[in-house]
Amino acid sequence: MGDAAKYDCDLLISADYLIASASPAAGISGHRIIEDAALAVSGGRVIAVGTRTGSADRKAKRRLDLGRSLILPGLVNAHTHIAMTFLRGSADDLPLKEWLTRCIFPRERRLTPEIVELGALIGCAELIRTGCTAFADMYLFEDAVAAAVDRAGLRCLMGEAVFGFPTPASASAEQAFDKVRGQAERFRGHSRLRVAVMPHTVYTTGEKILRSCLDLADELGLPLHLHVAETAGEAEDCRKAHGKGPVAYCRDLGLLRPTTTLIHCVVPDEDELDMIAASGAQVVHNPRSNMKLASGVAPVPAMLRRGILPGLGTDGAASNNALNMFAEMSACALLHKGYSRDPTVCPAAAVLDMATTGSAAALSWPGLGRIFPGGPADLVALDLHSPNFLPLYNPFSHIVYAASGFEVRLSMAEGRILYEDGVFKTLDFPELCREAEKLKQWVSEKC
Amino acid sequence: MGDAAKYDCDLLISADYLIASASPAAGISGHRIIEDAALAVSGGRVIAVGTRTGSADRKAKRRLDLGRSLILPGLVNAHTHIAMTFLRGSADDLPLKEWLTRCIFPRERRLTPEIVELGALIGCAELIRTGCTAFADMYLFEDAVAAAVDRAGLRCLMGEAVFGFPTPASASAEQAFDKVRGQAERFRGHSRLRVAVMPHTVYTTGEKILRSCLDLADELGLPLHLHVAETAGEAEDCRKAHGKGPVAYCRDLGLLRPTTTLIHCVVPDEDELDMIAASGAQVVHNPRSNMKLASGVAPVPAMLRRGILPGLGTDGAASNNALNMFAEMSACALLHKGYSRDPTVCPAAAVLDMATTGSAAALSWPGLGRIFPGGPADLVALDLHSPNFLPLYNPFSHIVYAASGFEVRLSMAEGRILYEDGVFKTLDFPELCREAEKLKQWVSEKC
Repeated sequence: MGDAAKYDCDLLISADYLIASASPAAGISGHRIIEDAALAVSGGRVIAVGTRTGSADRKAKRRLDLGRSLILPGLVNAHTHIAMTFLRGSADDLPLKEWLTRCIFPRERRLTPEIVELGALIGCAELIRTGCTAFADMYLFEDAVAAAVDRAGLRCLMGEAVFGFPTPASASAEQAFDKVRGQAERFRGHSRLRVAVMPHTVYTTGEKILRSCLDLADELGLPLHLHVAETAGEAEDCRKAHGKGPVAYCRDLGLLRPTTTLIHCVVPDEDELDMIAASGAQVVHNPRSNMKLASGVAPVPAMLRRGILPGLGTDGAASNNALNMFAEMSACALLHKGYSRDPTVCPAAAVLDMATTGSAAALSWPGLGRIFPGGPADLVALDLHSPNFLPLYNPFSHIVYAASGFEVRLSMAEGRILYEDGVFKTLDFPELCREAEKLKQWVSEKC
Repeated sequence: MGDAAKYDCDLLISADYLIASASPAAGISGHRIIEDAALAVSGGRVIAVGTRTGSADRKAKRRLDLGRSLILPGLVNAHTHIAMTFLRGSADDLPLKEWLTRCIFPRERRLTPEIVELGALIGCAELIRTGCTAFADMYLFEDAVAAAVDRAGLRCLMGEAVFGFPTPASASAEQAFDKVRGQAERFRGHSRLRVAVMPHTVYTTGEKILRSCLDLADELGLPLHLHVAETAGEAEDCRKAHGKGPVAYCRDLGLLRPTTTLIHCVVPDEDELDMIAASGAQVVHNPRSNMKLASGVAPVPAMLRRGILPGLGTDGAASNNALNMFAEMSACALLHKGYSRDPTVCPAAAVLDMATTGSAAALSWPGLGRIFPGGPADLVALDLHSPNFLPLYNPFSHIVYAASGFEVRLSMAEGRILYEDGVFKTLDFPELCREAEKLKQWVSEKC
């Protein structure tokens, strides 16, 4: 008698609370609480969502009752430079120009694939530990990021950064395109690794390269991500050079469309917000990085009013300095209330939508960020035995306003457990702690 | 042969990093890093600070090597309503008036000492878990808070809130004063519990009561805390009623002096900031609560420029919703950079000063918030084996920008271990989790 007859699922997980979703057809989010919940996983997918009692008769290969825990969709980090953990805390509290020219650029100029892979592994460990199961990454040497992500077991939309000048990874934009072509070929059909075209910004590429990026995205059927309108200075320079703001400039180049993701959008004007809404382009909001670099406050309430649901991202660990989506959700919900003087903006459920379905849309990966029958088995569980979760009236509130991220006791991507009760299952974490010393040494020697 | 001959300290703690202070005479902070550090504790005090090798010959009753950990002073939460954990997450994202009149006041009107004590115990567990060892508390039924704090082993500056109208705890301000007198008498000489006079606000008390509060503080030699200038509406009302802003009003009543602590100060004008600086009065900044309630952004950079080092506080869990000083430090450092468009304001070391020596000054308890020979043995240790701490260039940076607070592996107040590696030593935490259900039930039944 084969497995198929003996078992009806690989794993049956139960917990006191579960945040499940209506089926994708029902709309963009539809997160709702199921109490005394159970869900069945097989072949990397959720095959059923229900209650403990309703699942009692299931024939599961393994049963995992998480007791007083809250299962939620794995969070999706819609923008980071994962390898930049190598510079975490090496320089803070500096004027932007000094920080970039003295602390970031000189080190990045000497970058190697080895440093990128080690930095990415550390970043992956942090994502796993704090409940993120998928992310979008833009950096140099993305092949090394892919190796780290593959080992960690996460999902990633990877993008080799395209610049209009030579980098340690590519002598030209054309060489970066070749890398993207190679990655797209190599990871075609990969269930956890996808490729995007990622021009760095408008001002570090130029019209010709941006048009080539668009052509490449069309040719290969890939999403396109770029940093846009991050600072007032960038917008002003763009207006001087092109007679229009950076979002308008992107629109006129044909970049605004549903598979394009605009990262930051701190300083779009009202017309540019309308352009984004009309085009269906995606936006990623990075509140902690925008605050730390003093870029300003993105007009998120105005986006939400226009029906734009931004994704949430941490940006890199050099400008955050955490890669923790719970910290990002909390920062988002609080910042916009304080800044707009309106306590009703960015309510908890909307912010969770941003970090899940909003980010999934930004990755052009629509199944992510939701738990539903037939969907990917990407989920995390919070231990509700944490003093900051007492008492529990409303799980959405605790996720956004009370959680630190370190209450995560289980992280799973594609049905595989990546972290469980203090133990990393895919990474040798003690070894990674020892290896991390190398990053520090490398920075002090090379720069 | 007695203990005194056999041992020269109760406990010798060592760790890879320690944040120690110059002696109090050397100025307000003086935090500096000692690597490969050790410190000796006896009788609730730090008796020596040095290195592992320098302490090898010590005869300690117990040795505790924390390995790759970072010891820092126990953080000081300069303002909270600890018992309000009973309402944590019960209502968020509402207009202020609706939140207060529909969700907070009706429940507080039915408050009992039992609910206050249970709420306070939960709050104490969270403070201990997230590295806070001392706090200032303003609420009703402070005797019940004192019972919880005493059980938990924390330090607290407690203040029975004084109002100009009846509360469930006191029929009049006079009755509240009697409570304060009784507490001051009962806790005279207590090493961990101190008493303050805490009129709620200018507008909920009135001139006569504020003058009586000042007299009582003088009579008993107590500090005085009050909420001031929290919202633009409050300041406007004060100007209409008294022809001056709330800080100026306090100054004219004689309230501004070094033992008075002004909580919030979100909307003082420039003149009022000068008044605070000239008077030596203390300020407490509550960034997460001010954001969540959409009160606005306190002018912290302007305070620092005037030499005012504010303390940091969480406010209550109904408006935060965490009681986590690491989250508060991070919010403070990021918020003011973003709001002022200046990445150099509120640098990491200054923000740690706020959460330690700044808060200690706000409690009029100057030995707290620093580790130095002869000082109180109030300290916490962070486990540096956390992915968000990799690599480690600068401990100050990680404390403020990367830590969640849940990396705390040891919390100690007055030389007594309150939490160690997952175990609460003074509280029955599993029982507290069960008891927390009562809060929810009480709220749903009574209101």
